[in-house]
Amino acid sequence: MAPGAGRPRDERVDQRALAATREVFAERGWFGTSYDEVAKRAGVGKSSLYLRWGTKAELVVAALNEGKHLEGIDTGNVRGDLMELARVLLARQWSGDAAASYRFAAESRHVPELRDAAAAVKYSETVQAARRIVRRAVTRGELPPGTSPTMLNDLISGAIMRHTMVTAHPVTTTVRNRSQVYLVELVDTVLAGLVHRFD
Amino acid sequence: MAPGAGRPRDERVDQRALAATREVFAERGWFGTSYDEVAKRAGVGKSSLYLRWGTKAELVVAALNEGKHLEGIDTGNVRGDLMELARVLLARQWSGDAAASYRFAAESRHVPELRDAAAAVKYSETVQAARRIVRRAVTRGELPPGTSPTMLNDLISGAIMRHTMVTAHPVTTTVRNRSQVYLVELVDTVLAGLVHRFD
Repeated sequence: MAPGAGRPRDERVDQRALAATREVFAERGWFGTSYDEVAKRAGVGKSSLYLRWGTKAELVVAALNEGKHLEGIDTGNVRGDLMELARVLLARQWSGDAAASYRFAAESRHVPELRDAAAAVKYSETVQAARRIVRRAVTRGELPPGTSPTMLNDLISGAIMRHTMVTAHPVTTTVRNRSQVYLVELVDTVLAGLVHRFD
Repeated sequence: MAPGAGRPRDERVDQRALAATREVFAERGWFGTSYDEVAKRAGVGKSSLYLRWGTKAELVVAALNEGKHLEGIDTGNVRGDLMELARVLLARQWSGDAAASYRFAAESRHVPELRDAAAAVKYSETVQAARRIVRRAVTRGELPPGTSPTMLNDLISGAIMRHTMVTAHPVTTTVRNRSQVYLVELVDTVLAGLVHRFD
């Protein structure tokens, strides 16, 4: 994100605005999302939203691309890294943010502005995190060279998506505990698959 | 589905009605879906809809649970079965039906009627297909006893969901061809994972 012309950007305003956008978009979808409502919920001026994101599509795409906080993952071994990645993704799926992603996937097929923006929403933070994890794992000899970060990400994120897709909200403690066991099974299976694929 | 009291059900009417429901729900969501609109698009009487599905939630859940046609998969080996499963799921993701599922996942968090119905939408056809595939594979010695059909399904369906989630529509021939290669890589990786998980 490039800073505005000459004026330093307040990161907290960005974060509040993007979180509010995910919330409004999740509840109301494309047609129900307005700068007015986002400004109100975020407690920021509408003009500062317009300055940062010139169109509603830009605002929604920025909101969907933001906030996964996967930069810090580096436990020293691939299994630890994947468990941490899986935990963050699971927590995100249980938050309201997941609903915004589903809404986007559903509406981007019918709403031209969103369809055009879909190319920009590549869930790039997660793919980039997967790329860093794979690079280190290959260097350490834990994964074979040529391992696809996209496949890794599709398997981990996709399974977690399925796992949580029809969970009733709010999530109970029993479900949370069961899901910790699930994540271990998931990471073990995916790792074994990536290691033994060419056997 | 139990037949109506004394009167034989016309399966084609059911199919048309449920396909129309998926279409309307995908486009307009819960609040935009009405018996009126479904009856109009399906070309069936509104009263026959009410007879079959007494509430809108029942109608939507029936529509989401129907139409995957996975019963016939049985190629004689687990790899063939999984490739066929993957192909059907990919085709479904590219159809309008996927948008209905995403819409459901998004809205079931905010709409009480849908939240209550979520437990009934377990994507049961796919899980049942996975169960049959695993049972035969274990008998043939292709997969270890105790292999989880749910994990298998989460990995295959989930990865395909991620793979197609932000694909621009309509899908181009290039994307279709690339996806065939992707499915082979996916099935090989998942199979290796399930076989070698306990190594």
